[in-house]
Amino acid sequence: MLVHKIEQHWNQQVAGSIAAVSSSLYVGKAGPMVHTCACIASILGQGGSRKYKLTCAWLRYFKNDRDRRDLVTCGAGAGMAAAFRAPVGGVLFALECVSSWWRSALLWRAFFTTAVVAVVLRVLINICRSGKCGLFGKGGLIMFDVTSEDVPYHLVDLTLVVLLGVIGGIFGSLYNFLLDKVLRFYTLIHQKGHVYKFLLAASVSIFTSCCLFGLPWLASCKPCPAGLAEACPSIGRSGNFKKFQCAPGHYNDLASLFFNTNDDAIRNLYSLNTDTVFQKSSVFLFLVTTYFLSIISYGLALPSGLFVPVILSGATLGRLTGILMGSHATLNNGLFAVIGSASLLSGTMRMTVSVCVIMLELTNNLLLLPLLMLVSLISKTVADAFTANIYDLIVKLKGLPYLESHAEPYMRQLTVGDVVGGPLQVFNSVEKVGNIVHVLKATGHHGFPVVDEPPISDSPVLLGLILRSHLLVLLKKKQFVHTRAISSIDTTKEFSADDFAKRGSGKNELIDAIELTAEEMNMYVDLHQFMNTSPYTVVETMSLAKALMLFREVGLRHLLVIPKSTSGMPIVGILTRHDFMPEHILGLHPCILKNKWKKLRFGRLSMVKIFNDLRDWFKK
Amino acid sequence: MLVHKIEQHWNQQVAGSIAAVSSSLYVGKAGPMVHTCACIASILGQGGSRKYKLTCAWLRYFKNDRDRRDLVTCGAGAGMAAAFRAPVGGVLFALECVSSWWRSALLWRAFFTTAVVAVVLRVLINICRSGKCGLFGKGGLIMFDVTSEDVPYHLVDLTLVVLLGVIGGIFGSLYNFLLDKVLRFYTLIHQKGHVYKFLLAASVSIFTSCCLFGLPWLASCKPCPAGLAEACPSIGRSGNFKKFQCAPGHYNDLASLFFNTNDDAIRNLYSLNTDTVFQKSSVFLFLVTTYFLSIISYGLALPSGLFVPVILSGATLGRLTGILMGSHATLNNGLFAVIGSASLLSGTMRMTVSVCVIMLELTNNLLLLPLLMLVSLISKTVADAFTANIYDLIVKLKGLPYLESHAEPYMRQLTVGDVVGGPLQVFNSVEKVGNIVHVLKATGHHGFPVVDEPPISDSPVLLGLILRSHLLVLLKKKQFVHTRAISSIDTTKEFSADDFAKRGSGKNELIDAIELTAEEMNMYVDLHQFMNTSPYTVVETMSLAKALMLFREVGLRHLLVIPKSTSGMPIVGILTRHDFMPEHILGLHPCILKNKWKKLRFGRLSMVKIFNDLRDWFKK
Repeated sequence: MLVHKIEQHWNQQVAGSIAAVSSSLYVGKAGPMVHTCACIASILGQGGSRKYKLTCAWLRYFKNDRDRRDLVTCGAGAGMAAAFRAPVGGVLFALECVSSWWRSALLWRAFFTTAVVAVVLRVLINICRSGKCGLFGKGGLIMFDVTSEDVPYHLVDLTLVVLLGVIGGIFGSLYNFLLDKVLRFYTLIHQKGHVYKFLLAASVSIFTSCCLFGLPWLASCKPCPAGLAEACPSIGRSGNFKKFQCAPGHYNDLASLFFNTNDDAIRNLYSLNTDTVFQKSSVFLFLVTTYFLSIISYGLALPSGLFVPVILSGATLGRLTGILMGSHATLNNGLFAVIGSASLLSGTMRMTVSVCVIMLELTNNLLLLPLLMLVSLISKTVADAFTANIYDLIVKLKGLPYLESHAEPYMRQLTVGDVVGGPLQVFNSVEKVGNIVHVLKATGHHGFPVVDEPPISDSPVLLGLILRSHLLVLLKKKQFVHTRAISSIDTTKEFSADDFAKRGSGKNELIDAIELTAEEMNMYVDLHQFMNTSPYTVVETMSLAKALMLFREVGLRHLLVIPKSTSGMPIVGILTRHDFMPEHILGLHPCILKNKWKKLRFGRLSMVKIFNDLRDWFKK
Repeated sequence: MLVHKIEQHWNQQVAGSIAAVSSSLYVGKAGPMVHTCACIASILGQGGSRKYKLTCAWLRYFKNDRDRRDLVTCGAGAGMAAAFRAPVGGVLFALECVSSWWRSALLWRAFFTTAVVAVVLRVLINICRSGKCGLFGKGGLIMFDVTSEDVPYHLVDLTLVVLLGVIGGIFGSLYNFLLDKVLRFYTLIHQKGHVYKFLLAASVSIFTSCCLFGLPWLASCKPCPAGLAEACPSIGRSGNFKKFQCAPGHYNDLASLFFNTNDDAIRNLYSLNTDTVFQKSSVFLFLVTTYFLSIISYGLALPSGLFVPVILSGATLGRLTGILMGSHATLNNGLFAVIGSASLLSGTMRMTVSVCVIMLELTNNLLLLPLLMLVSLISKTVADAFTANIYDLIVKLKGLPYLESHAEPYMRQLTVGDVVGGPLQVFNSVEKVGNIVHVLKATGHHGFPVVDEPPISDSPVLLGLILRSHLLVLLKKKQFVHTRAISSIDTTKEFSADDFAKRGSGKNELIDAIELTAEEMNMYVDLHQFMNTSPYTVVETMSLAKALMLFREVGLRHLLVIPKSTSGMPIVGILTRHDFMPEHILGLHPCILKNKWKKLRFGRLSMVKIFNDLRDWFKK
């Protein structure tokens, strides 16, 4: 559904993301990677890019709406798979978050894409094992390995995990709430101009740096634990025991967290058997800093993702819970951090299956799966009670017409006829060129019903639907006839399938660009061969909720509304995605807004009834 | 879609499955477990079982088509999760195989179900760790642990994996082909009576036993390898080194495979660093035996699954490939066995994502994931070229009206009007009781259009659709009126929502059971309050392929066909699932069958064209 917003700025994405992540800002790389891959997929789906000389005759087979949408879905999955080296997680992310419409063929295509990602990653890792690629070769296929022989947990741990789920849900919904507010504020600033954008990004960046360098002074030095395999205090740029201002043989635990990349900080927090390495106060300070810095860093004028910061904050939250519980819990603090990450991820993004699989693929600890599943379900349920999922909030903020998968309760009370409106433009099957040009110039509609009326047919009859883009192709080719009669010549031979293929975004023909003489304007064009003769239709008395189901499940762009009574015009109107938007419907029927509260009260009443039923049942 | 075939024989399933698996027949336990869980879910979905006194007022909230279908999907996922201790695999199995219609809410409900399964399993395993539960406590959450620090593989191994994928695909499609033939043969025998059923099962069982005891004599004894942790030859009933007929200090490797449960045999084949334990000839013999025994064991009159036998045969196939490659391959033979299982599973069941995740959860070796993904994709692609997926074959064999998710090419050439037919029964909005009774007795239709004609309305108008089950409720309650006029009394008060709730299978009211007096037969019933006033409709000129999309994606049972011309009857007919079945369509239009071949030839021509394109492109 977001296809039309994806433009060809993937190269900026890559450069910007590298800069943003390496500047230690609390932004993720998963988001830009998903975006980049989706952009590349979208470019493939529009037949390559002529600007970059990346065209290929083959790609024209994908030049249609469905293949392009599928490609973007697969691309997003591939991006996720690459970001976290989690191929199955990538598929599930594409399924749970990206795609609003799913087919079984798409499932295995997405799987194929991520399989290729996994094999390529694996080969590159193998090549880089020799150490020629800098830091790239360091990690294996598993980013944060917390494999353990056995994960013992008792009933008290289960309670703690449930508690962590609730906390994660509350913090997750708070995260969404704050992020929404911050993004709204940033949008206001961004509207003022490029200088303001730059200043905002610069000031957040400077503030982040100040926090990173200033806060570790607050932590007290700890003596190095005895019997360590690695050097303490650590030497070189990556290491778990940063010396900072401490005396030799001591380390600053807060600096260990702040002076690493986000990935290394997560690895430190996840590491097993390090329960005594971090102090309570340091972890708390780190939690507050990452939580708020990640909220103010997202939405700056740079490519930023949410996954890594949320995983980091969640890990800190989990670790803090583990430390606070101390000896009450049998679970390792490192595992608490893993569970905390899953909890906060589910609380903000509201994915369940993908979060679990991604966490599983990140940490390679299958024994933790039952706990991960439990915590993400609880967190999602708690968070759903407060705010919507973060993606929905952002989509809403951007004003994109996103169709919810479920119908609002008030849609059941309305019929399709209640929302369809506006002057309807129809064409005859053999239409005057001048008339078409006039209508195309006057309106921005993308589809027009084709209707024949009595002089031509016996009674008014709906023939089909013609797309604006196809009309433009017809006008450009100038295959016109002189009389208003169905021509016997097969004009389709003059066109190739490629003429009607979907154009890339921004590459659409414009009506103003087509020059027609006065003589041509008086000629006719036969639409019979070029219209969609079986558009989906609904009767005007159809419930709006059911029409939404049809629109959404079949993945439509236009839905024709036909009248109930069998006399008069054979079409009432066209429904597009915009007609199903709550804003549009509530604008037409403001009284619903009041009834909505009545509905809610009714909902509460029925809740009371259910509780009574439950009580009766227990009494039995 | 299979809901109506699921009956309440889950207790038989459990007992039968335990007997079948413990009798060493080559049948799986996953199938019966999925079946059992789906049955239990179905019982919950019909408001509990009155026969077993398992009713509960609460369950009536699920007494509708959608919730019941969702429950069955979740149940199937839970069964899979329990059988393989693979919660995420269970969700994906439900997604990829069971459900033909998917919502995001269903995804997380299925996930919740399997999370509960995982937690319960984990708790039971913990309780049983003390050893009180016999063999149950032996395994952990991971059934066949093949964790390894590192999985090195080189280019030659990738080639071998691709080869194994091709072999798995060929063997998988052959499996489906043979199984289909065997099942057809068994169906003929089963029709002869219960005695034949019993004799068939008994003879296969005896034949299996003969193979199990006879074949190990063919294998030569091997001396026990030095430096083993476990006893050799093994003592007691489970063990990897069976003595059989061998001298002390020797073991029979074929007996080690045959004289174990299927699970233990799989574990033996998967075990790492045992490359020299099994001889080439023994593994080959075991492969042939399991492959064919599993084919003839499925479809006997006992609850049987396919997963475990296919995993076992696949593991043997992989192991054999590993042994044959000898020192050419760097991959361990145990890992070859794992990859072989994935290959044969994908080749028969044609699942990709679920196979990979299930194998991952079974073996806990995340590093193997890229290879597993590669092999299952290749295997599926190869096998798809030969036969359909095993479930489709079985569904087709049972004659269930299963709607494919894609439209056949010839459906594009047909319109809805071409397939709709038969005498159409319609009711008026206020209909005579006698007429309703007559129609219900004469036909077996489940839905009837409600139409008003000129005396009552101005022009013929389609009002909605009424279900047979709802008509029966109306007839039973006898809320009749004396005149053919719209009654002003609100008759809905006489009914509760529960009256119209979906009945359990086989619990439907029968028209013959309702007794009506002659006086009542002459009265009228007002259908206005009880019909579905917004049924989905299509125009008769709609392409059949598009109507199928609507039917399948929205999950319909009835689709009304309305006429294109606006005079005369406002309805042409009703489409049900049966009208979309290829058999029905080809029966109506036999000429398509001939054209189908033409279509195929055309398909080949376009393939040639694509190859030419490709050649030109390379020349550039």
